[in-house]
This record gives sequence, structure tokens and C-alpha cells, in this order.
Amino acid sequence: MELPQRVIAVVGGDEREQEIARLAAATGATVRTYGFPLSGSPIAGVVPTASAAEAMDGADYALFPIPGIAADGTLFAPASPEPILPDAGLLARLAPGATIILGRSDERLRKAAAEHDVALVEYEHDTELMLLRGPAIVEGALQIAIAETDVTIHAAEVGVVGHGNIGRLLARTLVLLGARVHLFARNPVQRADALCAGCVPHPLDELPGQAAGLSMLFSTVPSRVVDRRVLEALPPASLVMDLAAPPGGIDLDAARGLGHRAVWARGLGRRAPVTVGASQWSGIARRIAEIEKGKS
Amino acid sequence: MELPQRVIAVVGGDEREQEIARLAAATGATVRTYGFPLSGSPIAGVVPTASAAEAMDGADYALFPIPGIAADGTLFAPASPEPILPDAGLLARLAPGATIILGRSDERLRKAAAEHDVALVEYEHDTELMLLRGPAIVEGALQIAIAETDVTIHAAEVGVVGHGNIGRLLARTLVLLGARVHLFARNPVQRADALCAGCVPHPLDELPGQAAGLSMLFSTVPSRVVDRRVLEALPPASLVMDLAAPPGGIDLDAARGLGHRAVWARGLGRRAPVTVGASQWSGIARRIAEIEKGKS
Amino acid sequence: MELPQRVIAVVGGDEREQEIARLAAATGATVRTYGFPLSGSPIAGVVPTASAAEAMDGADYALFPIPGIAADGTLFAPASPEPILPDAGLLARLAPGATIILGRSDERLRKAAAEHDVALVEYEHDTELMLLRGPAIVEGALQIAIAETDVTIHAAEVGVVGHGNIGRLLARTLVLLGARVHLFARNPVQRADALCAGCVPHPLDELPGQAAGLSMLFSTVPSRVVDRRVLEALPPASLVMDLAAPPGGIDLDAARGLGHRAVWARGLGRRAPVTVGASQWSGIARRIAEIEKGKS
Amino acid sequence: MELPQRVIAVVGGDEREQEIARLAAATGATVRTYGFPLSGSPIAGVVPTASAAEAMDGADYALFPIPGIAADGTLFAPASPEPILPDAGLLARLAPGATIILGRSDERLRKAAAEHDVALVEYEHDTELMLLRGPAIVEGALQIAIAETDVTIHAAEVGVVGHGNIGRLLARTLVLLGARVHLFARNPVQRADALCAGCVPHPLDELPGQAAGLSMLFSTVPSRVVDRRVLEALPPASLVMDLAAPPGGIDLDAARGLGHRAVWARGLGRRAPVTVGASQWSGIARRIAEIEKGKS
Repeated sequence: MELPQRVIAVVGGDEREQEIARLAAATGATVRTYGFPLSGSPIAGVVPTASAAEAMDGADYALFPIPGIAADGTLFAPASPEPILPDAGLLARLAPGATIILGRSDERLRKAAAEHDVALVEYEHDTELMLLRGPAIVEGALQIAIAETDVTIHAAEVGVVGHGNIGRLLARTLVLLGARVHLFARNPVQRADALCAGCVPHPLDELPGQAAGLSMLFSTVPSRVVDRRVLEALPPASLVMDLAAPPGGIDLDAARGLGHRAVWARGLGRRAPVTVGASQWSGIARRIAEIEKGKS
Repeated sequence: MELPQRVIAVVGGDEREQEIARLAAATGATVRTYGFPLSGSPIAGVVPTASAAEAMDGADYALFPIPGIAADGTLFAPASPEPILPDAGLLARLAPGATIILGRSDERLRKAAAEHDVALVEYEHDTELMLLRGPAIVEGALQIAIAETDVTIHAAEVGVVGHGNIGRLLARTLVLLGARVHLFARNPVQRADALCAGCVPHPLDELPGQAAGLSMLFSTVPSRVVDRRVLEALPPASLVMDLAAPPGGIDLDAARGLGHRAVWARGLGRRAPVTVGASQWSGIARRIAEIEKGKS
Repeated sequence: MELPQRVIAVVGGDEREQEIARLAAATGATVRTYGFPLSGSPIAGVVPTASAAEAMDGADYALFPIPGIAADGTLFAPASPEPILPDAGLLARLAPGATIILGRSDERLRKAAAEHDVALVEYEHDTELMLLRGPAIVEGALQIAIAETDVTIHAAEVGVVGHGNIGRLLARTLVLLGARVHLFARNPVQRADALCAGCVPHPLDELPGQAAGLSMLFSTVPSRVVDRRVLEALPPASLVMDLAAPPGGIDLDAARGLGHRAVWARGLGRRAPVTVGASQWSGIARRIAEIEKGKS
Repeated sequence: MELPQRVIAVVGGDEREQEIARLAAATGATVRTYGFPLSGSPIAGVVPTASAAEAMDGADYALFPIPGIAADGTLFAPASPEPILPDAGLLARLAPGATIILGRSDERLRKAAAEHDVALVEYEHDTELMLLRGPAIVEGALQIAIAETDVTIHAAEVGVVGHGNIGRLLARTLVLLGARVHLFARNPVQRADALCAGCVPHPLDELPGQAAGLSMLFSTVPSRVVDRRVLEALPPASLVMDLAAPPGGIDLDAARGLGHRAVWARGLGRRAPVTVGASQWSGIARRIAEIEKGKS
């Protein structure tokens, strides 16, 4: 994709945005950045600015980070000196007909965008991008599992709850590392899929009965299935890891109270930012290409 | 499941039905069989009969084979001395309120069943059972690929078209055997999934351009995507294998005309009949359990 | 390697020799062939001849097939119209200072070679080449296992005896295909290696006690470890496959007498001849390169 | 193994020794410990003592930790309040005919042992135990690689130097995680083995030429093969990890000077201490069993 006439603002985020900015500049666009760390040598075509307003001034596209918008309406931008609120004033800076591409917007942003005729494109629930982030998420989980347990994954009895996009990838990876993986799912189709992938499948209601034999338990479902009954059945000081979107599937407070090592893997930050940034850019670029096609 | 009062007829099929009959008898039911080979020692509770009519006489359940019904209305029963036509006369033999469980029925059978108040339960499109048959289908494909090629799967450049239930399992297995697997799919979500599984993903329209570098090509999609243009681009005497349901995805006649080794893997008969029979029984048993629950 | 001045005779063998001849000709050498099938289009630089004598006339190198020399002194050459005996008369045809490269010679050939000042280079026991042939041997074993059993490899309980070059590769491949692999070996180092590769290791003396739980048994050791006691303990009609060099590790006659499916996998001929021929050529080429270096 | 009459001293070490002490006590022996952390509930049969002398008093066996003896002669015992020197005074405490089992002794200890008629059994170079520790070492390397790089292992181009016990296991694991693994080794047999395991093999002298394409480099050989020339060719800020025994294969100081992330993985302490402790105990137990057999 060639975008020599376009101005792209990248505002907020973390190391992943550095890779996104680099790839955006490779299209020939002018890329202005604010609110995330830029390390290493300067990148050709990427211009750091002194404020979110300066970055967005006259931009055709504004890219906001995937973790989305906090309850107070500000962007995810832990390295920014001040909170970044994408309000009407900021949106007014954009070029006419501009588009904001982001993970997920909120009511306030939608209203401001409508007022200023700014298009919003959300991609948090893009399954393709979720899959492309999958290996980074799974490797992050492996890192924690290795650091936090007294046994190897190899030859361990491991539980995984859920066989959706992440559960499936995690379970298969644990099998390849030599674990005996017990896969718990309500859906018999998911259990059959898990069997094909080398897991031992169980209906979800067998989890409390099987828990005593597990030395690690990973949950990938967004509803509270790993409850106190399961947690009490696990061996002392087990690793329990929640990989689901909030509210997650594990009662982590109860887990900690019972002496387990309880980890919410979603909150653990930077993981393979170059790989993940590149995968996000592939989704952003496809959306920009469609918009540009509509304009020409 | 305990079915000591029930009579189950198993009519038509092949070695898979032997395992189904054995497992059906393990419920305590009386099992009568006709029209498929019974080898080895007699099985307790399984009674071979002299005709389909005798097998079905007073039966509560009749199990017909998964390959379904031919154009002339007869069952798949290659070992039967005569064709088996499940007509009104045969259905009249069943016990009142009986159920026929089979892969797929046809119009004629539906009509006869309605007349005699026989319930029909079809399970050919049960995804769980298709997955449970998956390893048998994939291993059958491996057997042919090993027998029909001059190179090892290990280190070969292999193409797979489609990343559905079977395509996904086949591609992953080939990756684990050391092949470099090029996965062709229209759907970007399937391509992302393939990337996670270690394949090199390509949009489907890249297949003609990539074909010259492949030494085996497997198709798992039911539409004609491996056409003459692709076949002409493949190296001489390549293996092309179609694993899709009819009409399949490969023009096998054109493939043979061009000197390729062209195989329709679905037509290759017996594969791990004990494993496959057991997986079919798991689906049949679940359906019987639901019916029995309704009766009690 | 460039050998434009050299004449290479390829005498005896099977489809593998066709690939060897093709690769030999790619060095620029004149390649003369006799006693094995040549299919497909003519290969540039490869000249079929009418007799072994004609092929060897004035040759600098003669390549004989790896299966070695029969008890009567003739080469392995199933497609040859007559037996090929590499006697003094035939060796006298070679150029002065010629070298015969072959799997393994016998006493008669060694004597004839000494008389005519022909060098003999044997490579049957070259571990590198044995490993490079490994995937072809393992895939051949998979093909038979899939064809000859009623269950899938996936989820089967499988026994492998020995964890040397072939045993190790076979066991790991079966693990990746989803089998539960029981590895039997005397050597605790081999058992530890098998454990790392995902097998369940057992001392060899546990084989009789474990046999009843296996549905396939592969032996890769050249001594008679799978004896009548083990064979009697296996389930009826098990697959037992011997992959070892003669005399092998399984009493195949006893196995057949007991109703098992007994296969001597070494005797099953053609397997991935292009891959195997290329790996053999890599070993032959290295030996030629050393000889040429000595000459220059 | 039943050792109800024996006294076993476990002196020095880390969390691994806790598992060793627990398993030693499971034989019925009296186990006295000093110089390593004991966490969790008290273990039946394991008696913590106030000094190394008290632990060893009248013991039949003394178990010293595997990391061996420092230049000043003291044991590896980071959690001990004072250094533990196994000198003549300490050895004199042991029961007559006692045995010290340890990784590796030094000249001073050998002399003291000879004086007091104490047997020394070293097992650092036991290949079986090295293999059994292999998964823990490899998982430790994975943890670091995931934490220290900006890309996923999946789909990365990764270099591994050496294909011995650890190199082989590491390379295979990285392949299964989806990396493209370039394996560098002098020995063509190791390269053939790596090819079978799904790696891209290279002669060692190709490492400098290939380095620019790698994003991680692991070395498992104990000689200095990853020199400044290789390090300068790697991309900026690469991960270089040394898994070899001292002196290791990577010039880590040069690596750090060039801006790489350089890690000596052997020095990273606790990894799966329960698994590793259990594997060490299996080796210790076998040696004790042999000694006991000699006594009876």
C-alpha cells in the first residue's frame, strides 16, 4: 500500500505502537506520534510530537491503541506524561473526512466523532487479529507458567478450561511441550477437537472432580467457571492463570486466599511487541485500504 | 447406558458396523445383524440373521450405515448377498414407535417412515462425529501419500486447500511430520489459524502461481477449486488427493489426463474400522439415550 | 562438485538409482547405467547401456546399490534381465585406479578388487546416511501400520522396542501423531531420552508384562527380543513390525502362527526413492570428492 | 527402596534439595538437613538441624548439591548463613564406611575423604540425569527467550549451536513452538539428526554468514564458537543465550558491549525444582541401592 499523501497519527499505547508507526511510515505516509515510548534509532518518516493535539493536527487517520478506553474516557497510554482524552477539541484537529481506527470506542467518543463527522472503525473483535496475536498470548502464558511453578510443563498434568481461539492454541502448545493436557469444555464439538489435538477431554462439570490431579490450571473462558469448589480441590500452591477477557473465569481473590499462585495473564503487559504490532498493523492496513478504495 | 429390554438391528455397512454391534450389545440389548462382515470369534449378545427382515423384526432401533443411500434407494452394504432396500415392507417389521438411526435418508425412506410411524434420526452432519473420525481420515490420506509419492512427506513442499475440520487436522499433521505446508483458503480467519498451526498461508487465488513448487496437493473443499489451470502448473506426476465430499474440489479426470496420480480419498473404504465404529457408536448412543429419556 | 572428465557407472538397484544417476550426471560426468528401471523422460547425461560390462567399461567410479550382495555374490538388481555378478572379468573393465562405492561388499568382491587394484568404499554403516534415510523408513512403517490395523495410530497404545537412530525417530513421530508410545530399552540413557521425547519408558524386561495393553508393536533392535512369550501376551491379531537389520528382533514365524499381522518392514522395497536416492548421493558425492582431492 | 536403618544428611543446595530430602525420607531413612531452604509444612522424616556438623553426625550418606564445589572448596549453598566447607573435621563426623554422593568433588575433598575412608560418588556427568534435567533447562531457556525478545518464538528465525543432549532437545522444542530453527554443528551426523527433527542444518562455519538473519541465538557447546565476528553480524539488540557449561560458547562481554541481550542461562538458578530434584534423586537412589547391595 502506498500512501504518500496521507498523514497518520499514532496516539497512546506501548511498544507495539512503535512497530505500528514504523510500518505505517513504510507506506510513504507522514506519521506523527505521541504518548508511547520510542526507543532505538529514529525511524524514517516517523515524527514524534509534543502533544496529542499536534500529532492529530490535519491527520487523515488516527490510530488509538487496542486496550481501549478507560472508564474516564482516556486512552491506554502508560508512558504519556498526562492523560489523553479524545474529546471534541482533539477530534476537531483532524482533517475533514478523517477516520479513527481503534480497538473499541465508548459512548463519549462515539458522540464526539458523530459531531465532527469523524468515522470510527473498531477492530478489537476481529477474529483474524485475535488469532494472529495468539502465539504471543500463549508464549506469555508459558513464560509465567515456567517462572511460577516447581515442576516442568513437560510431563505435568495440566488443566485448560475452554477450547476457543486461545484455549485451543494454548492446549495444543502444552501438548507439544510434553504435558498431559486435560481439556474442560461444555461443548462436545470442542471436546472432540481437543481429542484430535492430543488432549484428554472432559465435560466442564468434571472439573471439580479432576482438579486434585492437576498442577496447573489455565482458564480461557469469560465466565466464572473456576470457582471456590474447584480452587479448594486443587493441590496446595497450584498455579491458576486466567487468560480470558474481563471478568475472567477464575475467582483470583479466592485463589490467592487459598494460597495458590493466581495470575491474570491479560494484565501482564508487553509481550512480543514487534510481532503483535505487526499483526495489528495488518488489520489496520486492510481497513485503511478499504477506505482509500472508497475515496478513489 | 443399560438397554436390557431393547432390540437393536444393525443392517448393512462394513467392518465399522461390527464394532458398532459389539458396543451396542455391551448395553445389554439384543443385537441382530445382517448385511455386513462379522469376523473373529462370535460376540456375546450379537446374533447374525439370515435376512434384513429377520434382523429388523420387532426391533426398537435400526442402525443403517453412514455412507447413506444410493440413487436406487438401497443401503451401503457391499458384503450383502443382495441389495437391501429399506422399503415399507421392511419398516413394517419394526416394533411400534421404533427409530431408524442413519447417516442420511432419502425421500423414499422418509415417506415410508412417515407411513409406518417410524422416527428417522440422521447424523451425517454431526460435527463432533466428523471430528472424531478426523484422525482416521487423515491417517488414510497419509497412507496414500506415502504409497503414491517418490519423496518423503518430511521436508516436502505440500499444498492443502481448505482449513475446515479435516483440512485443519490434515495440515497440522503434515506440519508435525516435517512437511512445509502451504495452506490455501479464501477466508483470512482460516489463514490466520493456519499460520498459528505452522503453515504458510496463502489466499486461494495464489494457488495457480504456487502450484509449480508443490509435490503433493490435498483438497478438502467441496467446490471445484483445483482446476485445469492449477493441474497444469503442478510438477509432472504430482499426487493430487481429494478429501472433500462429492462433488469434490479436484478435477480428477483432468488430473489423470495430465499424468498426475489422482486419488479420491473418500472412496477408499475401510480405515481404522474399530476407532471409527466406536466414534460412530458414541454419536448413536447419545441419540438413543435422548430417545429413551423421552420414553421414561 | 564438477566432474566433467569422469565416467560413472551405476549398476543394479531400483528407483533410487535413477535419482542417483540424475544427480551424478548433474556434476557433468558421463553416467552409464544398467540393471535398474529408468522411467519418465531421458535424463541429460545419463546413458542406459545393454550390459553391466558396457556400463563399467572405462568407468572411474562404479556405484552399486545399498542392499548389498546376495549369498551367491550377485548385486541387488530385481529389474535386471539376468543376475549381475561383479567378478574379476567385470572389474577388469574399469579404468585404472577406479573405485567401487557400495553399501557392503563380500569376500569374493574384496578379492577380485584387490587383484585388479580397484578400491572399494563401503557406506552401509554411515550413520549420517542412515539418519537421512530415517524419515523414509519411518513413513514406510506408518503406511503399513495404517493399512494393517483396525485402529488409528492417534490415541492408540503403541510399543516401540529400541531407541537407536530409527527407534528414536519412529517413536517421536508416533508421539506427534497422537499415540501413547511405550518405549522399551535396556539402556537407561535411551529411556531418559525417550521420556524427553514424550514416550512412556520401560526397561526391556517389562515388555512381556506390558504387551497385553498394546495394539501395535514395532521392533528396531537386531536381536531376538520379541519372543514367543511377548507374542503370546499381545492382543489377538496385533500388528508386529520388525524394522531391524537381519536377523531382526521379532520371531515373525511365531507371530504369524499366533494369528498376528507380522511384517518385516526392511523387505518392503521402494519408499520415497527420490528422497532416499538423493540422500545416498550426498554420501557418495562426499566420498568421490575426497578421492578426487587425493588425486589432484 | 527401604532404608529404615540409614541416616542421610542433605547439606547445601537450593529448593531442589527439599524434594531430594522428601524423597529420601520416603525410603524410611532418617534425613537430616542443613544449608538450604525448607518451605511449606514440615515433611515427615526430615529433620532440619542447626549446623552441617549436626546434620552429618553419624550419617551413612551425605548428599551434596550438584552445582559442585567453589574455588575456595565450599559447597553451593546460597541460603546457608555461613559457608560450608566439607573438610576433614566435617567428614570425621560421618558413620564408618559412609559415602558422599555429589555432582563433582575437588582435590581437597578427595584427599579428606581418602583420609577418613569416606567413599565419594560423583554423578555430574551422568548422561541419564542430564537428559532428565533437560526439559527443565529447556523450559528455563524458553522463559528467558520469551521475556527478553520483541518477537514471538513462533515464526521467528532462531539459531541453535550444537546438537548434543541439550541442543537437540532445545532445537526440537523450538521447532514444535513454530520457530524456523537453524542448527549449526561441525558434525554431519548431528546435522542429519537435526534435519530429521525439522531444523535447517548448517556447518558451523556458516554461522557468521547466517547470523544477520537470526533474531535469537542459543549456544550449547562449551567452546568459544560465538565470537565477535558472529556477534557483530547479528541484528541489533539480539538475544544471545549460553546454555553450555563454563567457559561457555559465547563471548558474553563482547555481546553486551555490542548492545545484545546476553544471558548465561546456567547461572539462572531455580527451575522446576520439584521435577529436577526428583530426577536427581532417581540417580542418587540408584547409587545408594548399589552400595546397599554391596553391603548385604
